[in-house]
Amino acid sequence: MQRAAALVRRGCCPRSPGPWGRSQSSAAAEASAVLKVRPERSRRERILTLESMNPQVKAVEYAVRGPIVLKAGEIELELQRGIKKPFTEVIRANIGDAQAMGQQPITFLRQVMALCTYPNLLDSPSFPEDAKKRARRILQACGGNSLGSYSASQGVNCIREDVAAYITRRDGGVPADPDNIYLTTGASDGISTILKILVSGGGKSRTGVMIPIPQYPLYSAVISELDAIQVNYYLDEDNCWALNVNELRRALQEAKDHCDPKVLCIINPGNPTGQVQSRKCIEDVIHFAWEEKLFLLADEVYQDNVYSPDCRFHSFKKVLYEMGPEYSSNVELASFHSTSKGYMGECGYRGGYMEVINLHPEIKGQLVKLLSVRLCPPVSGQAAMDIVVNPPVPGEESFEQFHREKESVLGNLAKKAKLTEDLFNQVPGIHCNPLQGAMYAFPRIFIPSKAVEAAQAHKMAPDMFYCMKLLEETGICVVPGSGFGQREGTYHFRMTILPPVEKLKTVLQKVKDFHIKFLEKYA
Amino acid sequence: MQRAAALVRRGCCPRSPGPWGRSQSSAAAEASAVLKVRPERSRRERILTLESMNPQVKAVEYAVRGPIVLKAGEIELELQRGIKKPFTEVIRANIGDAQAMGQQPITFLRQVMALCTYPNLLDSPSFPEDAKKRARRILQACGGNSLGSYSASQGVNCIREDVAAYITRRDGGVPADPDNIYLTTGASDGISTILKILVSGGGKSRTGVMIPIPQYPLYSAVISELDAIQVNYYLDEDNCWALNVNELRRALQEAKDHCDPKVLCIINPGNPTGQVQSRKCIEDVIHFAWEEKLFLLADEVYQDNVYSPDCRFHSFKKVLYEMGPEYSSNVELASFHSTSKGYMGECGYRGGYMEVINLHPEIKGQLVKLLSVRLCPPVSGQAAMDIVVNPPVPGEESFEQFHREKESVLGNLAKKAKLTEDLFNQVPGIHCNPLQGAMYAFPRIFIPSKAVEAAQAHKMAPDMFYCMKLLEETGICVVPGSGFGQREGTYHFRMTILPPVEKLKTVLQKVKDFHIKFLEKYA
Repeated sequence: MQRAAALVRRGCCPRSPGPWGRSQSSAAAEASAVLKVRPERSRRERILTLESMNPQVKAVEYAVRGPIVLKAGEIELELQRGIKKPFTEVIRANIGDAQAMGQQPITFLRQVMALCTYPNLLDSPSFPEDAKKRARRILQACGGNSLGSYSASQGVNCIREDVAAYITRRDGGVPADPDNIYLTTGASDGISTILKILVSGGGKSRTGVMIPIPQYPLYSAVISELDAIQVNYYLDEDNCWALNVNELRRALQEAKDHCDPKVLCIINPGNPTGQVQSRKCIEDVIHFAWEEKLFLLADEVYQDNVYSPDCRFHSFKKVLYEMGPEYSSNVELASFHSTSKGYMGECGYRGGYMEVINLHPEIKGQLVKLLSVRLCPPVSGQAAMDIVVNPPVPGEESFEQFHREKESVLGNLAKKAKLTEDLFNQVPGIHCNPLQGAMYAFPRIFIPSKAVEAAQAHKMAPDMFYCMKLLEETGICVVPGSGFGQREGTYHFRMTILPPVEKLKTVLQKVKDFHIKFLEKYA
Repeated sequence: MQRAAALVRRGCCPRSPGPWGRSQSSAAAEASAVLKVRPERSRRERILTLESMNPQVKAVEYAVRGPIVLKAGEIELELQRGIKKPFTEVIRANIGDAQAMGQQPITFLRQVMALCTYPNLLDSPSFPEDAKKRARRILQACGGNSLGSYSASQGVNCIREDVAAYITRRDGGVPADPDNIYLTTGASDGISTILKILVSGGGKSRTGVMIPIPQYPLYSAVISELDAIQVNYYLDEDNCWALNVNELRRALQEAKDHCDPKVLCIINPGNPTGQVQSRKCIEDVIHFAWEEKLFLLADEVYQDNVYSPDCRFHSFKKVLYEMGPEYSSNVELASFHSTSKGYMGECGYRGGYMEVINLHPEIKGQLVKLLSVRLCPPVSGQAAMDIVVNPPVPGEESFEQFHREKESVLGNLAKKAKLTEDLFNQVPGIHCNPLQGAMYAFPRIFIPSKAVEAAQAHKMAPDMFYCMKLLEETGICVVPGSGFGQREGTYHFRMTILPPVEKLKTVLQKVKDFHIKFLEKYA
């Protein structure tokens, strides 16, 4: 623990790029080495070192859990040890982890999970019948009627059927085939698996993967791991982070000089940017993918998180089908969902699914083979996914409570989205687009040139410098925009809107005060 | 479902190698294409095809869930549809999935899991106090006191502490550091993560990974995925599948011509071979790794599954420390454990851990970074791992029942190991080494040359042909030795010993009858 602390302390004035990437200052491991390696004559050179390791893994960056989070952990320990700070707790607004922020689990979901875990409870009168019904159905589809058996690599059959039924309902009747559903270990697993299959070629034929900037850094990390080529397209900050097809076209044309762009990734609702794509925009993107022969990846994990009254979630799958057979029988699409977001926030169970459209049957065989190597996604996460897609319906015993809990979470998020936008936009030097969906604000912050210089002196990206100062002075942990990508010369941070309303208000007030002081200090 | 069936039917007379690998006949996906693609003028060439996909993924093979398992699924459906067969059920002896075979979960483990899942139960008088104590401890270490929060990427702190305490007890006091423990999504995840970091270089400098033959095919699959070089060392069948260091030396010397062998993988107790390594052998291996500068991977997931009275499990970690500081401060080791095997058989939760020894501090930083990209292992699996390493102790309320359940599972496995060995060795043309540990028999089978020819005519490996016939005639599903690797010209299959005793007796009798008939038919 002390080591971790020391890492981060040193991390502020590094000598070499740390494991968290170029823009980062933390030479965590190096520091650790200094602390741990005792001078031993007999100690030989290690086999596995920074020099000998997989260079693609070395190139991976992942900001959401980067040095700022290590620093937050250090400060928490200092607080526990009684060290005085200008604040009494660290507020982890760096990651979309609802329950860690105090959101209560949906009762029905946990009841079904408990029943599946310990089936003796099926005899207990304290559990509602509809929960028991769900649990029995799940267990009957499990080997030995147990969550402790491996499932089929693609996931439990009846859960895949429930997912397909959910998609069909969601998309107003556009059919979904359980055979096209793959249960996954969170959405991240699905995204990296399908990218793993897609990447091929060498030199100028290496697969290019188009991703939005700002992006969720899973994408850049997996692209690094796979040694694929990252092709950036920029979202339009001046237009509420909208996706513009002309920008897609520009990015594609430029990329064709040095790679084979084959994949187009979309995050809708946007992470970290919170925009919700219009139906027209989705049509344009699909047409573009069709025209340019791009495999579409639609990251739709925030599909339940839409707050702006003039926005609606449209799935790529639905729009694809509505565009007619030329599109619906040709465009290759994988879309992703998760138990971690929405109103349930069940991150820890690592549940998710992927739906594939127009995947070549031979590739389906390859996909199942690849998934088989890891045996199966966690069956408890699969069960959690089942409850999300198969919730209580009107007339069922648990419906009312379920509905109330769900609407309470989503209603609060909508309130907090508006509150955050409004408060940020009252601060001079902060501009925040509307949070139409997802669970983050990604405000643009003005960083004075003197602060930029100070950051450079610390070998930090300016927004990392800003976020470190924010953390040190207020205890608020947010992620610098450089971890997601942003237009050169602009600075942002990502903050979740997950703290309870009153706490969020305090957080926003503190950010405001900090920002004004920061501007003064570096004026 | 019908499609899956058709795939496997066609799979027996393929035209091109199927997704399950060269030795395999199933052209599953091809068949599926034939069945599904309607003639549509507008259908364009797919972007993602067998030709365009990642060739390393295409090269992956994974026999344990391969075509024989697809075939088993087909037959089950036929039985359900009332189609007459010479048997009434399929017995899936292909995979170490204890609970699917009827093994009951350990009560205490599921009680703690249920309490963690639905903390309202902490007030219920029907749960024992020691289970509640465990659950409270786990929940207190989780964000928001919930299994639904992400954990730290390396795993929940107190669970890593419990793992370290377990290892220290297991190894008679050799200390374990929680900082060296990484919780994983089953052992497979840990193994592939550490290999991912280890692999580098191109051409003759590409990393070579030494694996036993026969091996558990996760290894070959991950090596394919990473485009590393597989270096085979053969276990000595004539000597109870013992590992011989001279054979390691031979394999290493030959490999040095075409790659950079950097990693040595050991499976102890052996899978599929069931041998338990002697302490002397482990010392020899460690000395060899030290001498040749190899990074050691010790797959010790069957550490609780030792049956022969003259065998004992010795961990690589313990032996390493007992060999003195020259070894204990130099040899780089990662060892793996899992909730899936042992006496608990909790496969579905995907729990596991990895302990690293002498990992370079810089690499630890890289490892945490890489793990962060997938956020965290399933927290429910982490909780399951905690209960495995922190079970009830004498004096606690649940101790007696826990102990009884555990000993019953392990006692039965020991009985079945002996029974299987004895019965197989009564069959002419079958030779089976003692099942000292793990949960499989890997008997050598004599396949007459006429049967070899028949297999060739079906473009099948001879043992795949044998196993397909066994499945079709008896309903028993086992995995051909070719899926694990074996010396040229020898044939084997892997069968689990997990069916309940009486059923296992029937299974063995059926295999015997089948084998005798097979020998007669192809005499």
